[in-house]
Amino acid sequence: MSRNIKVEELTQRPIESQDIEVVERKGIGHPDSVADGLAEEISRTLCQEYLSRFGRVLHHNTDKIQIVAGRSRPSFGGGEVIQPQYILLTGRATRICQDREIPVDTMAIRTARKHLKKALTNLDLDTHVILDCKIGMGSSDLCDIFDRDDVAIPSANDTSFGVGYAPLSETEQIVYRTEQSLLELRSRFPSIGEDIKVMGLRDGQVINLTVACAMVDRYVDDLDHYVQIKRDIVKELASRARAMTKREVNIQMNVGDDVKSGSVYLTVTGTSAEMGDDGAVGRGNRANGLITPSRPMSLEATSGKNPINHVGKIYNLLANLMAAQIARDVEGIEEVYIKLLSQIGKPVDQPHVASVQVVLKDGYRLSAVQRQAQELADMWLADIPKVQQMIFRGELPTF
Amino acid sequence: MSRNIKVEELTQRPIESQDIEVVERKGIGHPDSVADGLAEEISRTLCQEYLSRFGRVLHHNTDKIQIVAGRSRPSFGGGEVIQPQYILLTGRATRICQDREIPVDTMAIRTARKHLKKALTNLDLDTHVILDCKIGMGSSDLCDIFDRDDVAIPSANDTSFGVGYAPLSETEQIVYRTEQSLLELRSRFPSIGEDIKVMGLRDGQVINLTVACAMVDRYVDDLDHYVQIKRDIVKELASRARAMTKREVNIQMNVGDDVKSGSVYLTVTGTSAEMGDDGAVGRGNRANGLITPSRPMSLEATSGKNPINHVGKIYNLLANLMAAQIARDVEGIEEVYIKLLSQIGKPVDQPHVASVQVVLKDGYRLSAVQRQAQELADMWLADIPKVQQMIFRGELPTF
Amino acid sequence: MSRNIKVEELTQRPIESQDIEVVERKGIGHPDSVADGLAEEISRTLCQEYLSRFGRVLHHNTDKIQIVAGRSRPSFGGGEVIQPQYILLTGRATRICQDREIPVDTMAIRTARKHLKKALTNLDLDTHVILDCKIGMGSSDLCDIFDRDDVAIPSANDTSFGVGYAPLSETEQIVYRTEQSLLELRSRFPSIGEDIKVMGLRDGQVINLTVACAMVDRYVDDLDHYVQIKRDIVKELASRARAMTKREVNIQMNVGDDVKSGSVYLTVTGTSAEMGDDGAVGRGNRANGLITPSRPMSLEATSGKNPINHVGKIYNLLANLMAAQIARDVEGIEEVYIKLLSQIGKPVDQPHVASVQVVLKDGYRLSAVQRQAQELADMWLADIPKVQQMIFRGELPTF
Amino acid sequence: MSRNIKVEELTQRPIESQDIEVVERKGIGHPDSVADGLAEEISRTLCQEYLSRFGRVLHHNTDKIQIVAGRSRPSFGGGEVIQPQYILLTGRATRICQDREIPVDTMAIRTARKHLKKALTNLDLDTHVILDCKIGMGSSDLCDIFDRDDVAIPSANDTSFGVGYAPLSETEQIVYRTEQSLLELRSRFPSIGEDIKVMGLRDGQVINLTVACAMVDRYVDDLDHYVQIKRDIVKELASRARAMTKREVNIQMNVGDDVKSGSVYLTVTGTSAEMGDDGAVGRGNRANGLITPSRPMSLEATSGKNPINHVGKIYNLLANLMAAQIARDVEGIEEVYIKLLSQIGKPVDQPHVASVQVVLKDGYRLSAVQRQAQELADMWLADIPKVQQMIFRGELPTF
Repeated sequence: MSRNIKVEELTQRPIESQDIEVVERKGIGHPDSVADGLAEEISRTLCQEYLSRFGRVLHHNTDKIQIVAGRSRPSFGGGEVIQPQYILLTGRATRICQDREIPVDTMAIRTARKHLKKALTNLDLDTHVILDCKIGMGSSDLCDIFDRDDVAIPSANDTSFGVGYAPLSETEQIVYRTEQSLLELRSRFPSIGEDIKVMGLRDGQVINLTVACAMVDRYVDDLDHYVQIKRDIVKELASRARAMTKREVNIQMNVGDDVKSGSVYLTVTGTSAEMGDDGAVGRGNRANGLITPSRPMSLEATSGKNPINHVGKIYNLLANLMAAQIARDVEGIEEVYIKLLSQIGKPVDQPHVASVQVVLKDGYRLSAVQRQAQELADMWLADIPKVQQMIFRGELPTF
Repeated sequence: MSRNIKVEELTQRPIESQDIEVVERKGIGHPDSVADGLAEEISRTLCQEYLSRFGRVLHHNTDKIQIVAGRSRPSFGGGEVIQPQYILLTGRATRICQDREIPVDTMAIRTARKHLKKALTNLDLDTHVILDCKIGMGSSDLCDIFDRDDVAIPSANDTSFGVGYAPLSETEQIVYRTEQSLLELRSRFPSIGEDIKVMGLRDGQVINLTVACAMVDRYVDDLDHYVQIKRDIVKELASRARAMTKREVNIQMNVGDDVKSGSVYLTVTGTSAEMGDDGAVGRGNRANGLITPSRPMSLEATSGKNPINHVGKIYNLLANLMAAQIARDVEGIEEVYIKLLSQIGKPVDQPHVASVQVVLKDGYRLSAVQRQAQELADMWLADIPKVQQMIFRGELPTF
Repeated sequence: MSRNIKVEELTQRPIESQDIEVVERKGIGHPDSVADGLAEEISRTLCQEYLSRFGRVLHHNTDKIQIVAGRSRPSFGGGEVIQPQYILLTGRATRICQDREIPVDTMAIRTARKHLKKALTNLDLDTHVILDCKIGMGSSDLCDIFDRDDVAIPSANDTSFGVGYAPLSETEQIVYRTEQSLLELRSRFPSIGEDIKVMGLRDGQVINLTVACAMVDRYVDDLDHYVQIKRDIVKELASRARAMTKREVNIQMNVGDDVKSGSVYLTVTGTSAEMGDDGAVGRGNRANGLITPSRPMSLEATSGKNPINHVGKIYNLLANLMAAQIARDVEGIEEVYIKLLSQIGKPVDQPHVASVQVVLKDGYRLSAVQRQAQELADMWLADIPKVQQMIFRGELPTF
Repeated sequence: MSRNIKVEELTQRPIESQDIEVVERKGIGHPDSVADGLAEEISRTLCQEYLSRFGRVLHHNTDKIQIVAGRSRPSFGGGEVIQPQYILLTGRATRICQDREIPVDTMAIRTARKHLKKALTNLDLDTHVILDCKIGMGSSDLCDIFDRDDVAIPSANDTSFGVGYAPLSETEQIVYRTEQSLLELRSRFPSIGEDIKVMGLRDGQVINLTVACAMVDRYVDDLDHYVQIKRDIVKELASRARAMTKREVNIQMNVGDDVKSGSVYLTVTGTSAEMGDDGAVGRGNRANGLITPSRPMSLEATSGKNPINHVGKIYNLLANLMAAQIARDVEGIEEVYIKLLSQIGKPVDQPHVASVQVVLKDGYRLSAVQRQAQELADMWLADIPKVQQMIFRGELPTF
């Protein structure tokens, strides 16, 4: 059956020509990203376990992780956590199949600890966090349902859509890269905590980056030291960002600091979740790692959903892959925007509509790109099993 | 100090001229909307209580509500709930001010019960739901912080942005209205549960609506009855939708039903949260009541945040108000898109940038609308205290 | 197989002849008693449901209920609850049998609300309490295990013992009766809360009762009113107690009150659990409704355990029934003490030992009572199915 | 003010002369003992922290710990934990004093992990247990209350009693010692888990010990190995027990085993809490480490209560110390039983009554021992501050 793929020209100024562009990235230690990371890692662990025990992935969705902030008293040279963060792992997962019980909770907790160790290197897992787990069962027959799906392409679990676009704008690349740079700089500045937020505002030819970075108190001697570290980091980030653009770049860091009163962004553990900032899955970066109000976005959380029939996950990842290849391979395309819409119960490779909207380069016409774009979209839809494999293997970041 | 307001022309085809448009609305009984509603009502109750006890609103954010689904066994004529939903109210709120203690938890629970009663009329609050409350404190001096803000405009709590646009497209209006119609039809069809999702796909001149509506089992005698009710509802909805447009309208309801096998969308309580569907704040509708991937969106949850300094709330509501008035009052504007970006610590009425992007009607030029648009944007920024009053009084829906 | 019943003479002064006797009773609204009551009512509900659905009682133990106290601000004329009590229902229960699912959690919560309404008449169930439920499954095959037991007498679940004695001493009767009197007096003094504790100390021929009774604030106008009510209640209690004994009776109530400073035992809801006093199953009264350090006691919680094979429940209730009948029917017995010891896996009607210790009246010899005592003990052991019926029907109080 | 101390003769057969004696000990890894240990260690940590920060112990009671059992699948050679135990630390503790905040939760969790490591050596703290903490505040002024108490002896927090006796009977010593022996034997038999229960029944001159010991699966190769280990352990225990008595000793271990069907007492972690057995504070051993239905007992949990004014703790420990010294130092005393009764609000060193009941050796009269017993009791009451020091230093076991 042929797929309902619509390729359409979008007559709008490309993002780089618009005056105002707003781009945000929440770093891997931001409470919302931590929630996303936990959700996705737990889903990935379950996938692998199901595959190894039963030869196929069973039903699960672990996309509802809640991080309830704690209380702390940071202090130069090292403060203390007063009340640990509380992390609630919820969702649902098949627990029994073929009369064998899967240790879902134990696996979830083990995976969660492993991920936290990686994402928040200054967090003491033994005392700074309470890890609770309330993963429920799905309906009792879901083991069977996925069984039937084994022979064919699964049916969409919901009426929902995924969104993607390509290529990333310069500002988007710089915002993304700036967080990566901060992580790299940890070896030189151990006080850099992983809870980072980079907000980029391009105002014509000027890119303003507002960086928030939770500083780890025990690596900062005093206020002077703090000010100096901040200055050094900003200098380094600016130099890196300027190497990526001809536009003017301004960087400000921890603009909420009030140095005179000594009130600065200091933490014990490198994350604001230690003191008042909660986190939840799906509230942070989209599947391409960014929040881009100037671009189409899906609100579906990508992280933690099962990669078999949950279109909220598959379609977002697929739309990004599709867009990337079309932008790269089809000559004449300035920008491409993909929307994939499912209908509950229909095969996931047969979307209700696959909308491919292209902004053309000067001198190109829709007819010149239409067929190739359509073929690439069609190919990726046919390749959903391959995308699922990429998800199992952890090759596709989700936030 | 003059505000950084940028009015810019957006050269793009208006939404109505684009081929593909996707619009979604989650009804008031959808688990994500229930979470939004709980968050917002609790914040509103706290605002009123703080105002009445202390003459001003104290710090709080109740925007992290988690709904963990239960288990049920629906059955024609009336089934049973096996495991109640678990609703966790979290967030933080000032508990002590001027040596007086505010009964935050008791108020939160009372408000939550009241809201659930309204949003899910078929839910038995005594046995179908476990209502837990873990609302924490903020930092101990926040009572003071808001005190200082009393004399002036508060400072932004974060570097964040809000987004709005106007007017609503025809499809957007129809999608929104269709949920309202279903709620109105409850008097005629008591089996209509409040957990509704309307997905609209406009494909050129054809509007396809996919409606999911949790049917309440005790009002449905058997499968034939179910099929008949569904047919009658679809007929009614189609007639109402068609009255709103000259386009072709197709409506499908509960497309996941498999009538042959008897597997239909039946619930005991009118919400899918009774059986497997979790919910969380900020995962559903944007502040204008819709999810619109073809339009700019903010990921900030609007519901539950404090209306004093939380730009994630204020800027989203403000951007919508601003857009609505500009679209209505300024001649020559086809569409207007607003982005408001804050910087942490700066006065909320002084955004880092207020971007006003306009799509002009044929024959109009930017210079003709620029000044008036700028003035309206400026006026709304100056009117933030008025917006806060509207929030206290519950005049601004948030989802 | 004959039972290992040992009847032995205990040469000790009967309790009435000892100089010092200490007796305590926690009233039905005391946090520990509330926990006991919830546990037992939930078990009873499950028994009835299992019987009606499957014709037999399935495995369960709901004897671990935890009441975490809240916070309140009582005030003459009516104060407020600041933070609700948190009641956690835990334990385990068979959830699936013969492919049918039992709504254990819904039933537990419904029963809990019903019991709280009865035990704490001034508690507003909608806002003064958070009711959480974490009842787990047992091992998956327990449905079968009880099946096999159907044809015969069940096997003891543990190596454990139960204890009972008779008759109650005069002080024991007065202590027990004093709580009942307070409950009866509620119609005259609505300020009497159900959280009552009566501590009796008999010092030779003087009985001192120390009564703690949580007064409900909205029925008390002011401090004078409080003092007057307290005086009237004490007078009434003293008159009732004196009618039961020739000994001197002194009663003090709420001795922690400091009237001068206005610090008195006032509550919003009639229970100290609203403000700091936690509760748990098995920490309060023994199966005979009393705490009696001068008598043998078992530490096994009687409430909430399944009445089929849990010797911690059955043997305590049985020992009391056995003792009561022996004391009543066998001539020459002043006091009788029963200890029943099980061994895990052995039939519950075949205890490892059933020890019957008797204190004889003057002029009687062991040989005169031994046979009849033994027969009665034997009869009760044979009548365990009858005891189980009495438990199902709620005829045997457990605390 | 002289204290109300009553020394009385108890005319009863000493325990060694009675026919039947029942004695139980729950080992340090038994769920109830684990709860007791957690409660006491957390209280001790808080005491030390309060002392070091403020020079005195502040109000707290951490005596409500709940252990909700998990699920596991033990297997010879090593099985797996499916669902972790859930341990809820509750109670209340002063969190703020002199404007300084005490990290109560962090300390509680750190202490809990430390204790679990010691008490359950085969438990993987990272994946076999969920450690949650809901320790609340007391009333806000408690910091002050204890302040006032600083200058004098504190007032009793409740109307309550403590109980003690001495010396231990032979059976009591053997039961206690048998658990210790099992712990010592872990070096030789690593499969011995710490969840041990020893039930002793002395029937005339025969002591029957029923030992339950959770075997750790990864140290047991197969069923034959299990049977052999069990045989070797029983042999060793019997030899040790027989060295302590001239009576006949019979030992049975894990009597619930059904070797034929392969159903034996195997665990992954050495505790039954991994699979169905919950635990709670105050449900296990009394302060002397035993459960003794043939002796007077208090139901007050000793573990976790504050050692400043909680008579439920102080009086139980004091009664045991008092009894031990009277039994040791006063010539002519066969057995001594102590009951200490408080009245709320009265100084803790002025009990409502201190009852000293003595069973005299042949040939002794009450008048010969009365004065010395009274003096020793009086001395210990005067020495309460010393007892508190012993508690802080961890010199007095509580379970």
